[in-house]
Formats: sequence, structure tokens, C-alpha cells
Amino acid sequence: MNIVFIGSGNVATHLAIAFKAMGADITQVWSNDHRNAEILAALTKAEPINDLDALDQTADYYIIAVKDDAIAAVAGQLHEVRGIVLHTSGATAIDVLKSAGTGYGVLYPLQTFSKTKAVDLKSVPFCIEANSTDTLEKISAIAHLLSTSVAEVSSGQRKVLHLAAVFACNFTNHLYHLSHQLLEAHQLKFDLLKPLIMETAQKIQSAAPKEVQTGPAVRNDQQTIDKHLALLTGSPELQQIYEMLSSSIRKSSL
Amino acid sequence: MNIVFIGSGNVATHLAIAFKAMGADITQVWSNDHRNAEILAALTKAEPINDLDALDQTADYYIIAVKDDAIAAVAGQLHEVRGIVLHTSGATAIDVLKSAGTGYGVLYPLQTFSKTKAVDLKSVPFCIEANSTDTLEKISAIAHLLSTSVAEVSSGQRKVLHLAAVFACNFTNHLYHLSHQLLEAHQLKFDLLKPLIMETAQKIQSAAPKEVQTGPAVRNDQQTIDKHLALLTGSPELQQIYEMLSSSIRKSSL
Repeated sequence: MNIVFIGSGNVATHLAIAFKAMGADITQVWSNDHRNAEILAALTKAEPINDLDALDQTADYYIIAVKDDAIAAVAGQLHEVRGIVLHTSGATAIDVLKSAGTGYGVLYPLQTFSKTKAVDLKSVPFCIEANSTDTLEKISAIAHLLSTSVAEVSSGQRKVLHLAAVFACNFTNHLYHLSHQLLEAHQLKFDLLKPLIMETAQKIQSAAPKEVQTGPAVRNDQQTIDKHLALLTGSPELQQIYEMLSSSIRKSSL
Repeated sequence: MNIVFIGSGNVATHLAIAFKAMGADITQVWSNDHRNAEILAALTKAEPINDLDALDQTADYYIIAVKDDAIAAVAGQLHEVRGIVLHTSGATAIDVLKSAGTGYGVLYPLQTFSKTKAVDLKSVPFCIEANSTDTLEKISAIAHLLSTSVAEVSSGQRKVLHLAAVFACNFTNHLYHLSHQLLEAHQLKFDLLKPLIMETAQKIQSAAPKEVQTGPAVRNDQQTIDKHLALLTGSPELQQIYEMLSSSIRKSSL
């Protein structure tokens, strides 16, 4: 199986290395960032290319993992290829690929990837979609090479999943950051919060989040809420976030 | 070592069972909720009491784990006791205990406790404070029975820790809940997000949250942000939370 990667960011890197480890040939890595293309190409014994005219037209799969707003432009240049063209974006509909090749679809790994941290893909949900049953089967086969959790998800549902992931991951990580800042400002170590953060994530693996909500807002402890808001007097932005999320927790618990 | 527990909620339950397991005698459990007092007393082979006049005055420790706004009233009734009086609250200063006994202090486990889920206390940070060096040593000794992570934290710092924990745990759990609701409304399973939630919490065990922030806000992807806000048209509250946290992420990344 031959795969060409279009893109060399976090998602491209994690997927390319994982496919390589499962025995696929990564034949080319294209990126408009020459250095990144070379790094990923070196890691996967592929040819780095910077010009889409140099694209191998005979690969089995073309995996586009570039910024969302660049997918359409790249896909527009893949109409000659024989293989299946995929994008990996949560927020982009399948239609963006309709001029690319004959078989096309989506391979969206629902996970957060950083360059510096390995991720075990085996349990990562891969959300797939295709322009035909035949293509769907092929995408399902390569997704199952990487993960035991493969689900067919429509473009409409995928948009919602991606949005929900922003709440559960991006916003959550930002709350970690805000708490990190608060502690640092008072000479306290962020390490103190790490077990709490792990336990909070672990709890909802087996219970609905609403059932394990704790804290002053859900128990309507206005005295503590007032103390917290007073502590945040110098940070109007944190006060606003505190008030908005506390009010949302209260409404949810009614 | 004899311990009397004042309170029978989540914190009291987890601590009493853990101390019992480490060989302490839990002699009494007081609660104004008769049934809860009986349940915890049965679990720890203690005597359930409902009247503070029946309190054993000779225990080594009195651990007050009641709602924050009830601590002062309970502590006011413990001036005759010989042992050390402790509260377990993050948001309450040590002074609330000053009329209670001669030695008093704080034993604050920085963790979220639910009745239905066991927590391994060994890695939970216990934040301690005392009215004297002698009392501090005794509190440190019993904290070390339960955990390898014991830190002296002043009342002022503890308030900040508690506030930071609200951001990192309570608010985070609420974001899990909001994403859960979003998925349910579109016939999608919350299970799909669970690996992402675990990975997000795991990432910051070894990296500063700011360094691993991902998502449309941090990469200034306005197109995706607009799509998400459009998806939330029917939920003005979620739109507001989305906009506020995205704007906060952008400011942090400047």
C-alpha cells in the first residue's frame, strides 16, 4: 500500500509514522514548508516534494492534512490521481474533495496531537466518510490498521463532534492554563493540581459528567463563589469566565 | 489513634475509610443527617451520633468535614475537647477554628470526591496548616499515613489553590457536560470524546498547558470559529461561553 501525505503538521506526522509502522509505504510528503516536509519524509523514508506537479499520480491513498482553509486549494490540484483522496479535518465537509480523483472521503482522528508527545492511536476514534460504499470499505480498512475504534460519521455529525471536541479539549486545556497562571502568581506549583486534573478526566470515563459535578456552583454555595470573585478582583476576564461558567453549571443542575 | 468525624459527606467518607484502613480507630461519626452518619459509622465501625453533646471529648483528632458555612458553628461547640481539631476545606481560613480546642489546623485534600468512586489517596496532595509547630508536626504525621504528597500551605495560598481547582476541575467537568449535551442532541455517543479527554489531561502532566494548546482559537482560524458559532445559533449561552473562552485563548497566545 502506497500513501502520499499532503501536509507535515502534527496530524500528518502522527498518521504517517503510524501507517509506516503498520507496513505502508509513504512514497511522498508534500508541504509548502520545505523543512517540515524534509523532516517527516526522513522519518518515514519518503521523498519530500514542494511542488504538487511532482506528485506521484499512482499512489493508493492521498492523505490531505493541511490547515482547513487550504484543503480546497490542494484538493483542486489532485483531479488526475488514481488513488483515494482523504482529508483529516473535523470541521470540513466531504464535498470539498469532489473534484479530487474518483474515490474520496474523510479520515478524522478524534484526538489532540502535539509534535512532542506520542499518542497510542489504537483507542483513538477514527471517524470516516466516503463518496461511495466501495471507497468507504477501503477507508475503513486502513483506519482499522491504526485503531480498533472506527465509526462512520456524516459531515453534519462530524461538525458537531469537532465542536464538542473544542469544548472538551481546547477549552478544557485553556482552563488548565488559567489555573496554572493563578497558581504561579501566588508562588504555588501547578503540580499540586495534576492529580485532580487526572481524576476529573478519569471520572467521566464511567459516569455522565453531570452526575459527578462538584464545586460551589452546583451546591449553590454563594459564600464561596463570592470569596472566589473577590480573589479575582484584579482579573476582570477571569471573573467573567468564573461567573459565566458558574451560572451555566447552576442552570444545568436545575 | 482515635479520630472523631464531624460530617458524613464525600470528603468525610473517603478520609474516614482511608484512616480506618491505616489502623486508626474511628470512634464516632456525627452528622445532622442521621442516615448518613449511620452509613459511615457502619463502614468504619464507629458510633453514630446526632447530638454534639454526646461527643467523646478524649479523641486525638476531630476532623470537621461539613459544608463550609457550617464549620464555624460546629467548631464553636468543640472548645472542651483535648485533641486536635481539623477542618478539610479549601476555601476556609484556619482562624475559624480558633475557639476549638488548643491545637487546631487544616487537612485539605486537593481532590474531587464522589461517593461512588474510590480514589487512591496516595498521590493526592494534602495541604496542611496548623496553629503551632507542634500541631503541624502531628497533622503532617497523619497526612503522611494517607499520602506521599503533603505540603504546608497558608490559608491565603489555600484559597488560591481552591479557586484554581474550581477552574481545573469543576469548570472542566462542566465543559465535559456541555460537550456531552451537544453530542446527545445529534445522536452521537459521548464515548467518542473519552480518549480525547484523557489525552488532554495526560498531556499537561508533563507539559505546561499553554505549550500544548490546540484548536481554532490558538491558531486564529476564524473560518472554523465562525462555523462553530453558526452551529450554536440555537444556544446563546453556549455561544457566549465559546466566544469568551476563544477570546481568552487568543489573548493568552499573544
